[in-house]
Amino acid sequence: MKLMQVTDPDRVLKLVTEQFKPLESEKLPLTQAGGRCLVKTVYAPEDVPGFNRSTVDGYAVAARDTFGAGEGIPAIFKSVGEVLMGKTAPSLSNSQCCLIHTGGMLPKDADAVIMVEDTDITGAMVQSFRQVAPGENVIHRGEDLKKETVALPEGHRLRAPEIGLFASLGINIVAVHRQPVVGFFSSGDELVDYNSRELELGKVRDSNAPALIYLAGQYGAAVKYGGILPDRFETFLGQSRAMLEEVDFLVFSGGSSVGSRDYTARTMQELGKPGLLVEGIAIQPGKPTLLANCDGKPVLGLPGHPVSALNIFAIFGRAVIDRLAGRKEITFIPTVKAILARNVSSRSGRTDYVRVRLEAGVAGWTAHPVFGRSGLLRPLAEADGLLIIPAAKEGLGAGELVEIKLWE
Amino acid sequence: MKLMQVTDPDRVLKLVTEQFKPLESEKLPLTQAGGRCLVKTVYAPEDVPGFNRSTVDGYAVAARDTFGAGEGIPAIFKSVGEVLMGKTAPSLSNSQCCLIHTGGMLPKDADAVIMVEDTDITGAMVQSFRQVAPGENVIHRGEDLKKETVALPEGHRLRAPEIGLFASLGINIVAVHRQPVVGFFSSGDELVDYNSRELELGKVRDSNAPALIYLAGQYGAAVKYGGILPDRFETFLGQSRAMLEEVDFLVFSGGSSVGSRDYTARTMQELGKPGLLVEGIAIQPGKPTLLANCDGKPVLGLPGHPVSALNIFAIFGRAVIDRLAGRKEITFIPTVKAILARNVSSRSGRTDYVRVRLEAGVAGWTAHPVFGRSGLLRPLAEADGLLIIPAAKEGLGAGELVEIKLWE
Repeated sequence: MKLMQVTDPDRVLKLVTEQFKPLESEKLPLTQAGGRCLVKTVYAPEDVPGFNRSTVDGYAVAARDTFGAGEGIPAIFKSVGEVLMGKTAPSLSNSQCCLIHTGGMLPKDADAVIMVEDTDITGAMVQSFRQVAPGENVIHRGEDLKKETVALPEGHRLRAPEIGLFASLGINIVAVHRQPVVGFFSSGDELVDYNSRELELGKVRDSNAPALIYLAGQYGAAVKYGGILPDRFETFLGQSRAMLEEVDFLVFSGGSSVGSRDYTARTMQELGKPGLLVEGIAIQPGKPTLLANCDGKPVLGLPGHPVSALNIFAIFGRAVIDRLAGRKEITFIPTVKAILARNVSSRSGRTDYVRVRLEAGVAGWTAHPVFGRSGLLRPLAEADGLLIIPAAKEGLGAGELVEIKLWE
Repeated sequence: MKLMQVTDPDRVLKLVTEQFKPLESEKLPLTQAGGRCLVKTVYAPEDVPGFNRSTVDGYAVAARDTFGAGEGIPAIFKSVGEVLMGKTAPSLSNSQCCLIHTGGMLPKDADAVIMVEDTDITGAMVQSFRQVAPGENVIHRGEDLKKETVALPEGHRLRAPEIGLFASLGINIVAVHRQPVVGFFSSGDELVDYNSRELELGKVRDSNAPALIYLAGQYGAAVKYGGILPDRFETFLGQSRAMLEEVDFLVFSGGSSVGSRDYTARTMQELGKPGLLVEGIAIQPGKPTLLANCDGKPVLGLPGHPVSALNIFAIFGRAVIDRLAGRKEITFIPTVKAILARNVSSRSGRTDYVRVRLEAGVAGWTAHPVFGRSGLLRPLAEADGLLIIPAAKEGLGAGELVEIKLWE
């Protein structure tokens, strides 16, 4: 019997970066570019803010006019009006001040703002019981971003703060990498469409397809679904070849039969060069995973068990989508910290993912392993996330502080 | 000067649950229901799996026929064929076996599967060098889910595993809470549309609107944007009233002027009963936040500073959306664990959110605080996430292990 050669998970992630390239550029309105990555570095077309602004509600002054002021000896100002929001400010002479609101534009002759809490007002007379330093309570022109400096670097992904930053600069069209299109096929003679009402004995519904299609969408990809491939090689290869022309990333899922796995591997060798890169990953669940590079396009063969398929797609499918989308920075895997409720064993040399349910306790979260075979969906739906046991460990002990990766 | 009465962040989250109700039900195709929450408990219409299945590639046998087998004394079987995927299995007599693949249906007379690795095959003769227990390498009918037991409880959010579970049961239409519609207004006389090319001196672009609209979408809401409200109370109230009729949740953002804050608070009192619930939160950045219940509909007034506005919407805006969407389970806030690079001070009695950049090191992540005032967007875009300093602490020290909440 042929032994499967397994690849280390980190090596697989490195292969993804080495073998595949980000997709080409397209221009999008800013409001449609959320989640996309910049094709090139964007420079600020102007200073942000565009003028000196107050960061508090108070009185704009020349700081030197407050020097020496304190609890018993107020500095005294004549208020000459108010800075109206969105308007240029009136000008000030010596010992004059002007009412200003948060975000208001500083008068040309002012360099600081006294907070309204530190003043006492009688008619047009404003007393300050504190001295302020030049620049106090002021954001200076260009302090957020100077004209012609880097606003955001190449490969940066646009999240809410980035959208806000570009909007503040008036950048409303951005050049980003195109959205990856993922093609999905299910395979296996036991599978029927999940919409099937009645099942013939021996058949199962194709539950992976809708779950994986949802995940691909969550990761920012568009999806084409090709249906269930029969266990006949010519059809398998023909349909795969046609789909690969239309998509950026092809994924096989669903069948756990020997035939469908063999056909997937053979198809990967036929579809393009260099073909199969990975024929097993040192990971549990999900070891029988295939990855190929077919003339520059990634092709992934997921294991048939639903839990394995979702786990592998969440790690490696996502990495491929991120790579095609041009994401430069490291993708952090957010986790929840928890106390492990019981011992969990694991095989050394293999990264293990164990389903856990999180329970609130006085000292934070407690992680309860949800047992059940990797083919079972119910324990997965019961689980809040996955406990990762690194390959170097042979298990984790009750009471240990662990990290839980959440499901999407 | 009137002092703002601040509410504890946990109390605000509790108010969200107490004051607002999940939206009504709608029926959706399963493939469109991702992210939605179940209106009522769903029971399994059938057993999953629907028949006893093999979890490995091997030979289906009656376990008792292997008893006593070992390295030197194999149990000997006659192979009578193969279980074809998706077909019913042939029947077995004593000491007969049958080739079976992962996921294949067990013959009626078999109760275990010998892994192919543990056998030696000569023609139709199969020798097993191990004994197997009844049930070994088999998933039994109904083991994942028994007919008429709870498949998923009320309020459960549909993620990828849940979609897979329902698909495996043939549940392709689900009753979920309707998607919340969030209405946004910006306000403040200094604001101009972010598409404006040239800025008049004193004006700033409304950068919050596109960033918040993106976040609301990420949290699963649909959005209506009403534009920039002028600092005139009658218009402010009139437009807000009209918008509130069309949405489930109204959000004011953008202006930091005293006028727009006053108008927001007055509008909240006029729009419905009981009106204003919160007029400040013990949180930094984001203290000047308003929350109201206007005849059952939540209305949120965000602080004007972009960083504060995004922070508050990510915590409390999201909590409101989750509540309207009927989400029952606790929303975990996923974090990344990191070593703090330097001391960070904080005021006791207030939850502080400090922007940090994460850097990979030998011992894991190091969190570097990104300094800059709360009005500045560039440090926010530079930050990978937020370090949370609990209200009970007066700061955190260099070298401490901390948790970082990531941006979306």
